[in-house]
Amino acid sequence: MLSKNEIKNLRALHQKKFRDLEKCLLVEGERVVVDLLERNPKKVKRIFSSKQFDLSKFQSNNTEVIEVNENTIEQLAMSKSPQGIVALLDYPDEKFSDSEFVLVLDGVQDPGNLGTILRTAAWFDIKQVVCSKNSVDFCNPKVVQSSMGAVFDVNICYRDLPEYLSQQKRTIYGALLEGESIYSKTLRIPSILIMGNEGNGISEEVRSFISDPLSIPKYGVGESLNVATASAIMLSAFVGEVL
Amino acid sequence: MLSKNEIKNLRALHQKKFRDLEKCLLVEGERVVVDLLERNPKKVKRIFSSKQFDLSKFQSNNTEVIEVNENTIEQLAMSKSPQGIVALLDYPDEKFSDSEFVLVLDGVQDPGNLGTILRTAAWFDIKQVVCSKNSVDFCNPKVVQSSMGAVFDVNICYRDLPEYLSQQKRTIYGALLEGESIYSKTLRIPSILIMGNEGNGISEEVRSFISDPLSIPKYGVGESLNVATASAIMLSAFVGEVL
Repeated sequence: MLSKNEIKNLRALHQKKFRDLEKCLLVEGERVVVDLLERNPKKVKRIFSSKQFDLSKFQSNNTEVIEVNENTIEQLAMSKSPQGIVALLDYPDEKFSDSEFVLVLDGVQDPGNLGTILRTAAWFDIKQVVCSKNSVDFCNPKVVQSSMGAVFDVNICYRDLPEYLSQQKRTIYGALLEGESIYSKTLRIPSILIMGNEGNGISEEVRSFISDPLSIPKYGVGESLNVATASAIMLSAFVGEVL
Repeated sequence: MLSKNEIKNLRALHQKKFRDLEKCLLVEGERVVVDLLERNPKKVKRIFSSKQFDLSKFQSNNTEVIEVNENTIEQLAMSKSPQGIVALLDYPDEKFSDSEFVLVLDGVQDPGNLGTILRTAAWFDIKQVVCSKNSVDFCNPKVVQSSMGAVFDVNICYRDLPEYLSQQKRTIYGALLEGESIYSKTLRIPSILIMGNEGNGISEEVRSFISDPLSIPKYGVGESLNVATASAIMLSAFVGEVL
């Protein structure tokens, strides 16, 4: 059980200013919580559950599991169907360690897109993601949720991109509609791949650093691909060829 | 301007029962509306706009553009930041025409995922998508929205999958964690590719029809990839090799 005051303090975490103050956030749903407990148990501070989940196998992690009623779950969760489980997590930390292949995101705004990109990056063992300073915050609960916990698996940092890119001596690929087809281009490492904003693509300033523009050829119709989709296709091309 | 009653009737379309009755739906945002006007103008019945958009180039389509105030847009839209434009669309129609390559979706539940898959399918000129009967409805506004109008570009139909698949004589690929790597497997057409549900993958009954299980190898960590991401990577592998 939780007291009214405890619920109030947890609900305050729905607001960014309180999350930033406490350096923690809430996520919901069995799949993401189980993934987190398996790979990053130290990040899970407490679990609130209204249903019987088989969490016994994670007891060794000493994560506190608190039984609450359905009404409390509804108060803690931000979605309409929270599936009976909410977890309190520590904020992920910004990390940078130079790597043979770096994914750079220039102004990705949608939390679902960033989360999905990180989930894909973790799957493909991409070690480092560098985001422009105007990208969505990776501590945003929707990012953490749609990453399925991958925010804790991949190194992520925020940089002034022109400054960061001007120091690089390797090949800099960038996703541009007029780029060379990923199906014919020979891909190399060490390198960097830049993906752009949902509506406007890669900004003009950052674009000037691209040495090798890449594209996913359009055989049918559409203005563009979703940026998480395009990132996945590009990363897969690198994985299939050089990583 | 719209009368109170007109607004009320349009707002009723936020509910599925009224959408199904009227066979029309609302979408919002400049990008999707512009895409729709360019490729499927006949599907756009009316546009409600609170801002000045350069819609003049589409005037030849005779789509009625109604100027409304910001407050009306907020009432018509389902999101919190509707960007000043909402369009009333006819429902897409179910269509089937046999094709050398068919994408089959078994129980995809999330409207954003189905929409994103359709957007990718349209880009790659995939002619036909066959959904299981328990898949999310492609007339759902969130599907139409995240497809960026591709629901009108790709043929989509709903079928009893065991019945449909039992009539097929070509290669049936299916995305399974234990399948053969897409990076080493030789892909062929005519064929079918089956993608499964977000949480449970391909159902047991449908799985029995797979002749060639495929997988996206995991080089890093994670339980799975997002189904729209996995579909994009798989479709890209087919496009790069045979389509």
